[in-house]
Amino acid sequence: MKILIINGPNLNLIGKREPSIYGSTDFETWFAALRRTYAARNVELTYRQSNIEGELIDCIQAADGRYDGVILNAGGYTHTSVAIADAIRAVGVPIVEVHISNIFARENYRQQSLTGAACRGAVTGFGLDSYRLAIESFLLPR
Amino acid sequence: MKILIINGPNLNLIGKREPSIYGSTDFETWFAALRRTYAARNVELTYRQSNIEGELIDCIQAADGRYDGVILNAGGYTHTSVAIADAIRAVGVPIVEVHISNIFARENYRQQSLTGAACRGAVTGFGLDSYRLAIESFLLPR
Amino acid sequence: MKILIINGPNLNLIGKREPSIYGSTDFETWFAALRRTYAARNVELTYRQSNIEGELIDCIQAADGRYDGVILNAGGYTHTSVAIADAIRAVGVPIVEVHISNIFARENYRQQSLTGAACRGAVTGFGLDSYRLAIESFLLPR
Amino acid sequence: MKILIINGPNLNLIGKREPSIYGSTDFETWFAALRRTYAARNVELTYRQSNIEGELIDCIQAADGRYDGVILNAGGYTHTSVAIADAIRAVGVPIVEVHISNIFARENYRQQSLTGAACRGAVTGFGLDSYRLAIESFLLPR
Amino acid sequence: MKILIINGPNLNLIGKREPSIYGSTDFETWFAALRRTYAARNVELTYRQSNIEGELIDCIQAADGRYDGVILNAGGYTHTSVAIADAIRAVGVPIVEVHISNIFARENYRQQSLTGAACRGAVTGFGLDSYRLAIESFLLPR
Amino acid sequence: MKILIINGPNLNLIGKREPSIYGSTDFETWFAALRRTYAARNVELTYRQSNIEGELIDCIQAADGRYDGVILNAGGYTHTSVAIADAIRAVGVPIVEVHISNIFARENYRQQSLTGAACRGAVTGFGLDSYRLAIESFLLPR
Amino acid sequence: MKILIINGPNLNLIGKREPSIYGSTDFETWFAALRRTYAARNVELTYRQSNIEGELIDCIQAADGRYDGVILNAGGYTHTSVAIADAIRAVGVPIVEVHISNIFARENYRQQSLTGAACRGAVTGFGLDSYRLAIESFLLPR
Amino acid sequence: MKILIINGPNLNLIGKREPSIYGSTDFETWFAALRRTYAARNVELTYRQSNIEGELIDCIQAADGRYDGVILNAGGYTHTSVAIADAIRAVGVPIVEVHISNIFARENYRQQSLTGAACRGAVTGFGLDSYRLAIESFLLPR
Amino acid sequence: MKILIINGPNLNLIGKREPSIYGSTDFETWFAALRRTYAARNVELTYRQSNIEGELIDCIQAADGRYDGVILNAGGYTHTSVAIADAIRAVGVPIVEVHISNIFARENYRQQSLTGAACRGAVTGFGLDSYRLAIESFLLPR
Amino acid sequence: MKILIINGPNLNLIGKREPSIYGSTDFETWFAALRRTYAARNVELTYRQSNIEGELIDCIQAADGRYDGVILNAGGYTHTSVAIADAIRAVGVPIVEVHISNIFARENYRQQSLTGAACRGAVTGFGLDSYRLAIESFLLPR
Amino acid sequence: MKILIINGPNLNLIGKREPSIYGSTDFETWFAALRRTYAARNVELTYRQSNIEGELIDCIQAADGRYDGVILNAGGYTHTSVAIADAIRAVGVPIVEVHISNIFARENYRQQSLTGAACRGAVTGFGLDSYRLAIESFLLPR
Amino acid sequence: MKILIINGPNLNLIGKREPSIYGSTDFETWFAALRRTYAARNVELTYRQSNIEGELIDCIQAADGRYDGVILNAGGYTHTSVAIADAIRAVGVPIVEVHISNIFARENYRQQSLTGAACRGAVTGFGLDSYRLAIESFLLPR
Repeated sequence: MKILIINGPNLNLIGKREPSIYGSTDFETWFAALRRTYAARNVELTYRQSNIEGELIDCIQAADGRYDGVILNAGGYTHTSVAIADAIRAVGVPIVEVHISNIFARENYRQQSLTGAACRGAVTGFGLDSYRLAIESFLLPR
Repeated sequence: MKILIINGPNLNLIGKREPSIYGSTDFETWFAALRRTYAARNVELTYRQSNIEGELIDCIQAADGRYDGVILNAGGYTHTSVAIADAIRAVGVPIVEVHISNIFARENYRQQSLTGAACRGAVTGFGLDSYRLAIESFLLPR
Repeated sequence: MKILIINGPNLNLIGKREPSIYGSTDFETWFAALRRTYAARNVELTYRQSNIEGELIDCIQAADGRYDGVILNAGGYTHTSVAIADAIRAVGVPIVEVHISNIFARENYRQQSLTGAACRGAVTGFGLDSYRLAIESFLLPR
Repeated sequence: MKILIINGPNLNLIGKREPSIYGSTDFETWFAALRRTYAARNVELTYRQSNIEGELIDCIQAADGRYDGVILNAGGYTHTSVAIADAIRAVGVPIVEVHISNIFARENYRQQSLTGAACRGAVTGFGLDSYRLAIESFLLPR
Repeated sequence: MKILIINGPNLNLIGKREPSIYGSTDFETWFAALRRTYAARNVELTYRQSNIEGELIDCIQAADGRYDGVILNAGGYTHTSVAIADAIRAVGVPIVEVHISNIFARENYRQQSLTGAACRGAVTGFGLDSYRLAIESFLLPR
Repeated sequence: MKILIINGPNLNLIGKREPSIYGSTDFETWFAALRRTYAARNVELTYRQSNIEGELIDCIQAADGRYDGVILNAGGYTHTSVAIADAIRAVGVPIVEVHISNIFARENYRQQSLTGAACRGAVTGFGLDSYRLAIESFLLPR
Repeated sequence: MKILIINGPNLNLIGKREPSIYGSTDFETWFAALRRTYAARNVELTYRQSNIEGELIDCIQAADGRYDGVILNAGGYTHTSVAIADAIRAVGVPIVEVHISNIFARENYRQQSLTGAACRGAVTGFGLDSYRLAIESFLLPR
Repeated sequence: MKILIINGPNLNLIGKREPSIYGSTDFETWFAALRRTYAARNVELTYRQSNIEGELIDCIQAADGRYDGVILNAGGYTHTSVAIADAIRAVGVPIVEVHISNIFARENYRQQSLTGAACRGAVTGFGLDSYRLAIESFLLPR
Repeated sequence: MKILIINGPNLNLIGKREPSIYGSTDFETWFAALRRTYAARNVELTYRQSNIEGELIDCIQAADGRYDGVILNAGGYTHTSVAIADAIRAVGVPIVEVHISNIFARENYRQQSLTGAACRGAVTGFGLDSYRLAIESFLLPR
Repeated sequence: MKILIINGPNLNLIGKREPSIYGSTDFETWFAALRRTYAARNVELTYRQSNIEGELIDCIQAADGRYDGVILNAGGYTHTSVAIADAIRAVGVPIVEVHISNIFARENYRQQSLTGAACRGAVTGFGLDSYRLAIESFLLPR
Repeated sequence: MKILIINGPNLNLIGKREPSIYGSTDFETWFAALRRTYAARNVELTYRQSNIEGELIDCIQAADGRYDGVILNAGGYTHTSVAIADAIRAVGVPIVEVHISNIFARENYRQQSLTGAACRGAVTGFGLDSYRLAIESFLLPR
Repeated sequence: MKILIINGPNLNLIGKREPSIYGSTDFETWFAALRRTYAARNVELTYRQSNIEGELIDCIQAADGRYDGVILNAGGYTHTSVAIADAIRAVGVPIVEVHISNIFARENYRQQSLTGAACRGAVTGFGLDSYRLAIESFLLPR
């Protein structure tokens, strides 16, 4: 099983940025460990990050047919991007949305998720473990 | 580890009610299987359901100090109940919100979660597997 | 034909409460007469009242399969209860909403009907006769 | 007893227009049968239809003193016409609003009823039977 | 003079719940002292608490004719319950609303009081002393 | 000087309709007296009334070049008619809006004036004298 | 007959301020001529201006019992002052609101009139002649 | 191919009305030329105009089965008429909406199109050429 | 203990103004009696009134360090004044808001309290007794 | 005549993406045929697509002075991009907006067009033929 | 060059009021130093403060023709005062708005600036240095 | 001292674009002069421009630790970009927002600044001098 993690704007700063909200773990280090863990369960994890809305759309389009699942954290675009939501609806690969913080408990403008409305489901508020739960969602027996 | 699942209004009808949205699996049957599975991992699952908002508050208050975690699906009260959200904030036990359908993709009035804002995190849209992912969230190494 | 009338909060006070709006007829007395009238037309009427939102949901769920029709006056919950509306959608029995006063002519927050949106139809503004018209709606040839 | 039915815009197309919402019965045919039925109960039914907002106002004004009751389906003007609502308030004849579909369950802009707020009461969602129930409301003993 | 204090959801946790907002005094202990104090002034205080919206309505209805005054803290239902407000309007006993915290200074959704609009008056923001001031309001010479 | 008074929907009922708001004077009688009064000052008054929005537009268009001024009371269309406002803007004749009642003190939906925004000015709240003041506005030395 | 004209903020600049909106006539000069004109009709005109909201309230309170009518142009306070509107409602002297420009045709925030809602009526859009028409409103036979 | 052009309120004044927005060409002259041009391409053009909302509905209903296409410029009714939109949905003939000015660049209340939502498509902003492009839309090979 | 009562606009008219809302007691007379009563309890009461928003701010600033408590009824400024609320937050003296009528039961624009949000607490709806309860709030043992 | 077609996000997927809304024709194939057709009429068509908002701005800026017209389908950015609208206003080349589906009939958030407000005009709802009609708009005699 | 600094309500408390937001420097001390600094650059600074909205208007009007520039911090009136904004528009002297804190980062109701909309420009968020930057704006070569 | 100026979309067109709003000076020419001026004061200025939202985020992230201050004009993204605001909050370098025109005086949607809320402060409305004032803000003694 091949799963692509797509991170949006400022998520390259995880571990440095506002640690009271996002924690102090560095994403790359954390991802390397995660990759090893899931390799043992025959899951191949890939990781892309971009600050550019349209490149996230490119990533989503390119994932179609190449991956069994996509995990998307669209960061600040989550709440405003009609275009990313359109991309999610345009492809066949199942996509799960994740958020590190609990977006229901954040500022009003972060409580709506345009992109999440187009995804299969969403996991929000478990810190970096939100990504783990999203991976698990692809591994559950159907 | 002891985990309490609290289901709110109409969730006793899962399997019968609007199957195109909520699926056709009966919750009790499904829960019995789930309980066996997790017993093997030393997790004891308990289940409560009520259609009454205030009884859900009673359940949440009573869980404090007796369970290691609570999984809450407050159903139609999710979007309107200041009182349940107050109860969640008033207790010490960690609570995770789940939804069977993806609330971001439902009617406008189902996209806001007053109760989810008071929880640790939320899992939405994975069918009954949302409950499984919520259980997993309590089992992840911290 | 068996029809269940479900009255919500404060409707037990009909005849005593704000008579300029709700009239001065006592509901139980009025219901006894109504019951006799319709018995002659082979309609068996039953009556439940509760001030508790979740008990109204219990009533609606229990009516499924036991009655040919339900007449619901959800009182103050009409305008706020996602959970009762979900219950109405979850059952198979046809439900008709009634209101004693004309809700279109009341305060703004009484002009929206969340529960009515889930019913077959609604009758509003005819005093206690709203219940009679609702009963008639079940007796019309189809 | 003389009752006037006033139908507003597009209701002349009933039976042809969007049958999934409004049914496939032709109004004139249906009205002819209705007229015969109620003639036996000494009720004389008259029918007017216009697509023009101001002609509906003319009809309402002209009905004052000539009919014992008016049944009004103002169609698309229901939700926007301050002027028709003013006309209803300006006359003495009792007026009952009807809708074929359940307006609480339609688009947002069809859930408000400016004209219904000025009527004695309203019947909504019973198909063409809404008109029958409205007639019955004039025949109930007072 | 007989006065009934009705506390709504989560107020049974006063002293344990969010002490930075609601203080650390236990309500029952505090109430026992209060009762003794006012007994000396010939005021008999009674106390009811429920987390269930409809039971609060039952309490309000039952107080009519049995008490000289009611002090109501409807907790989280203050801001959303049309049904409790209807109950207050339906009974003759004078009711005063109290809040421990200053609701004008809380979250937006706590600044509106549906129930307070139906009460004689309201006292908000004085901690548990809000209840004392409410009692005093019944003792003032008229 | 030739002035045309255009009255919109339901203003033909003035004197009969809601006298607590609109007074009990019959417009035609009142107009006949007014006409005589102003004839002495060389002002020729003409009067048109229609309940039909589009006929009011026809009147406004036809007045262009034939009258020195128009006095418009668009009744219930005042608050909703983009089309009448467009007609006012499309012609050269100066138009003054009048209202019998004070629209600032009426229901919210009567406080906005789409048509008044396109007029030279407005006079509101002086009963039938609003028409007199509007006539005076055309007679003032410029 | 004694009439008091009260002008609010910035109306002392009339003739200097934004002449495309408010004209280029100086208010004092204009008022002097107006005073002479109406003296011949036995009307005594007095004039007060203040930029201070509370002084306008003082003026309104002081006018009660001393004048037969007040003409108020509350300027920028028209749209925001609950306190001036309260003052108008608190006194017995009839008050008429005037505006030089047509407030229905101005910015959104100038289209609402809190103060006008408390006045007998309003005249808006006739330049300085709005004041003349307001005076005439007091002179009309009643 | 037979195409009907239906123009709504004030469009009879095109060429005279607000030429900075709507241009200075007279519609009838322009239509005569257009008719000749398209006659050469075997398209028969017919033209109707009315200021009356309900007559536009009559026109739309009457066009059904008699024309191959309708071009509708509902003028000021575009933004407010639920009833015209209902008529469009009620008939089978394809209808294309046109606007002379670019409604996206006009006042807020002109940016919404209730009628356009019921049409096949819309052409806005090309002056009178909007009508030509709408005709071309019916002539494109399908 | 020294307490300052600050009354805002139009409260000098209490007893004369809208007695159905504000009662018919004259404030000065009432205050003189109140002063005597509390002098016996060693409370020295002072009274200031102004119709001018900024003078109320001056009063609040001047009270800091000179009084043990302030009772503020900001009248119509309660609902609109960011500046008075800023003044309350800027000083150290505890301030309690009072209202004669129950503001939750008044017009929408009187239900929000910008100034109350900055106060320690508020007492609303007890007529002039609201002031007494506010004084009592300073006398309660802490 | 040289015309540039600029397509925004996800329009590279036309023919694959949500065919019930956008059709099943591949844009490149369709464009090649279109190009040949218009070459015969001396129109040279060029095509650019990008998923990146800022690259669309680059395209619009670069088109200025190089093309006689631009046809823009900004996709999901249509409804949110102040920046693209600014770019359109900043250049001299005439730009026409097109949409494949009828945006007036889509979700609320797709009914507003920030970019269309800055264009000469817009064509919406004709499938890929919207592009043809936009080209025709540049070819009409002026 | 002569520049007038006008400070609005509560700014006389700078240095004492909420130091976490507004700093702990006393304005008068700070102003004295500032005055000396700019005297060396031939700039004469004057300072006025008032808590009264109308006195700020008086100041602005009086500054016209006497100063080369005005620096205005209208405090809490910034967000609500149509009247001050009117005064700014009514005078010829250039006015620059300043704020000590960054109003974009404050409560919602402090993010709008009615007065700033009428000024030449605004400087917000630099503490007392906002005044210095405003002075510099008058000294830049033009 | 090293300061980076980051300009967002369409600001590369300054001098060409809408000169009535943005002036007719070319940014590069102006920047070259500015650079020379400040070099004399030991300030090294660098300049970046991009039309792409995500590249502005890249720039902001890259500036952290390399510059002593950043001056940001995010153009059309100012009002919509949660992602740029997140980037500003994520870095340590102080950032000042500038706008050439006075955004408080522009269209409604340009009056809110999401990005400015995350900056230290903002300077708006001084033409290109806004950049100079922003530079001065970094040079003031602290």
